[in-house]
Amino acid sequence: MELKKQITQIAKNALSASRVLANLTASDKNRILEEMSASLQNNKEQILKANKKDIALAKASRLSAAFIDRLALNEQRIEDMAKCLLAVSRLADPVGAEIKAWQVSSGLQIHKVRVPIGVIAIIYESRPNVTADCIGLAFKSGNSVILRGGSEALHSNLAIFEALNEIFKKNKLPQGSINIIATKNRQAVNILLKLNAYIDLVIPRGGEGLIKKVVALSRIPVIKHYKGICHVYVDDDADLNMAEKICFNAKVQRPGVCNAMESMLVHRDAAIRFLPGMLKKFKEAGVEIRGCPLTQQIGKEGIKKAKDADYRTEYSDLILAVKVVASLDEAITHINEYGSHHSDSIITDDEKNAREFLKKVDSACVYVNASTRFTDGNQFGMGAEIGISTDKLHARGPMALEELTTYKYAVWGSGQVRE
Amino acid sequence: MELKKQITQIAKNALSASRVLANLTASDKNRILEEMSASLQNNKEQILKANKKDIALAKASRLSAAFIDRLALNEQRIEDMAKCLLAVSRLADPVGAEIKAWQVSSGLQIHKVRVPIGVIAIIYESRPNVTADCIGLAFKSGNSVILRGGSEALHSNLAIFEALNEIFKKNKLPQGSINIIATKNRQAVNILLKLNAYIDLVIPRGGEGLIKKVVALSRIPVIKHYKGICHVYVDDDADLNMAEKICFNAKVQRPGVCNAMESMLVHRDAAIRFLPGMLKKFKEAGVEIRGCPLTQQIGKEGIKKAKDADYRTEYSDLILAVKVVASLDEAITHINEYGSHHSDSIITDDEKNAREFLKKVDSACVYVNASTRFTDGNQFGMGAEIGISTDKLHARGPMALEELTTYKYAVWGSGQVRE
Repeated sequence: MELKKQITQIAKNALSASRVLANLTASDKNRILEEMSASLQNNKEQILKANKKDIALAKASRLSAAFIDRLALNEQRIEDMAKCLLAVSRLADPVGAEIKAWQVSSGLQIHKVRVPIGVIAIIYESRPNVTADCIGLAFKSGNSVILRGGSEALHSNLAIFEALNEIFKKNKLPQGSINIIATKNRQAVNILLKLNAYIDLVIPRGGEGLIKKVVALSRIPVIKHYKGICHVYVDDDADLNMAEKICFNAKVQRPGVCNAMESMLVHRDAAIRFLPGMLKKFKEAGVEIRGCPLTQQIGKEGIKKAKDADYRTEYSDLILAVKVVASLDEAITHINEYGSHHSDSIITDDEKNAREFLKKVDSACVYVNASTRFTDGNQFGMGAEIGISTDKLHARGPMALEELTTYKYAVWGSGQVRE
Repeated sequence: MELKKQITQIAKNALSASRVLANLTASDKNRILEEMSASLQNNKEQILKANKKDIALAKASRLSAAFIDRLALNEQRIEDMAKCLLAVSRLADPVGAEIKAWQVSSGLQIHKVRVPIGVIAIIYESRPNVTADCIGLAFKSGNSVILRGGSEALHSNLAIFEALNEIFKKNKLPQGSINIIATKNRQAVNILLKLNAYIDLVIPRGGEGLIKKVVALSRIPVIKHYKGICHVYVDDDADLNMAEKICFNAKVQRPGVCNAMESMLVHRDAAIRFLPGMLKKFKEAGVEIRGCPLTQQIGKEGIKKAKDADYRTEYSDLILAVKVVASLDEAITHINEYGSHHSDSIITDDEKNAREFLKKVDSACVYVNASTRFTDGNQFGMGAEIGISTDKLHARGPMALEELTTYKYAVWGSGQVRE
């Protein structure tokens, strides 16, 4: 009961703060972001000290090396966070921008104008940099924010939060502008997700389990940053040299991220020419291949049989499912059925096939002759990102400042009444 | 179990149909909409016959006269539905429109393109015209649709559905293009709302109870068309003659709709000049006033005391809460706290106050010197509407064809890989 009261109070404060943040000028926000950036640098030691506590606890709990790597901070990582805040200060302010304007026959002048969403809750796992990134992006887009990070990163998150909150206090911004739920009690999230009277949006960032839990419990709209089962389809008419480079990049350059390729589809008329060299290259890079019967035949020894489930798996690792398909149509159907509607690419010199692929593949980002690894706010020229939405509603694909806004209609009349 | 299987199958069919609908040309869709319009006219007798059954059952169940009025069809109402389909056929097709396009430093060309959302479920109460309107709007925007109307309108909805589905069959469109859940079993909605694997969006249209239930149960994103607690604020600097006309229109012209005024706020320096005449006019029109102490004092006899709850109530009737406020700031704070973020208007000749109101009132539609009654897809020049969103995410305010789409990024490369 006490926890419910506390969290409700946090949400109420966040709502009332959001009314103030929505009306700050761009120049004030930019100056404050610069101060926040400097404050991270100035509080480097405290942040690293707090992080050491988290690391020690994580090691004592025998968490994996990969987990500890995500959790660990060092001088460079703190500098990167500071740089990110500086970069956000230099991005254009989306708030107040006119999306369109028109006049209707009654004489009313209608302006569709970008405004902040209001209060955004972000539930994430144990990467402390998310704390600083989300505070920066939410603030620049005029939103207040409630953070709930992984409990394993609690000390680090609190230290980062304090360094930034100092600047909010110094600038006399309302207390609820940025908020962190600093309890290890797992009930906190359940309570938070029911507070639709105060919170406008929840963004969960983490594994499948976390996202499913949030969707099941939330009465607040959720934008999901879900898994990426990304495909590259090598068409009959592909430049096979280009195809090899792109497929290799999409799988190997950084296999642990959501825009890496998990399944490679190859047109059967290209398979004999393409697969032997490609598979050899993958093997040399340590990629485990799970193939359809034809792939197994062409690749000879060392290729496991792909089960149906392999085509539905986000490996986030050096494992690749490979399937030979009879047609572009089969490739598109496979991607829509087995993929996660994240990022998919066709390699082809046939413009008609390219256009068909772009049209029919139902994914946030569809590519022609490029690696799926480009699905990223920075690569898209957005300057930063709060994540990549696999939802269709509100925002899809890379999300940055504009995607953290909604709109209102501001209507100017001269006495109009409805007939 | 049987019901779950049936409804899951409907959703699966809708998903596979949506892939086909997404790729129809505008001219095909427009021709089919014209045929749908004609089919409603041709099936008028069957529809009226079915409606008679519903009316008889509703009367036997002693449902209210207002309920029966919403349920009842006649020749005119069927012609209006047919006209609406024709109007939708003449609207611009949003699908495929380029929202923006740019090139990034890697050389990738990024096109942000409008695409249908996919599968939309609409849960509504007993107004049979919603059946035809929603089918028309969803089809034109390239979406498949699953309808679940109020059980009291089941015969009418089925007859309308059949008249339209004839045209879908004739044009060999996939079976799952339009779907109706034709059971009175209330479990159906619970099952439907869990099918987030197939359904992209739920739009509930109805009373508060229905919407709360949908939000609590749904794992599918919901866009709410919620209540309208709309305000008109009469500023110190208002043209009081204009203010009187607008307030009268906003309350009296059609009190049962969501964009009617429920609370009137008056600046205290205008109260003595404005309220006596205004209140008299309202009384003559049969409007019951519930006022703050000052309003009671100025209005003299016959003014009930407004309780706090009165300012939070959507009367949908000839009842009005009236409050005298000390400042523009108090008016804005009151609206943000007590309103439903739907439509609010300021009457003023002071441009600075107008701009502050537009900026700070956190509602879908904010007006200067016009009646709140203009919040409507037709009045906004959208040609039709599927409802008025009180949500901030995805779409806000009047929703028509564009609001039933999302976007994808279609990216053209020339062999780019990520460094």
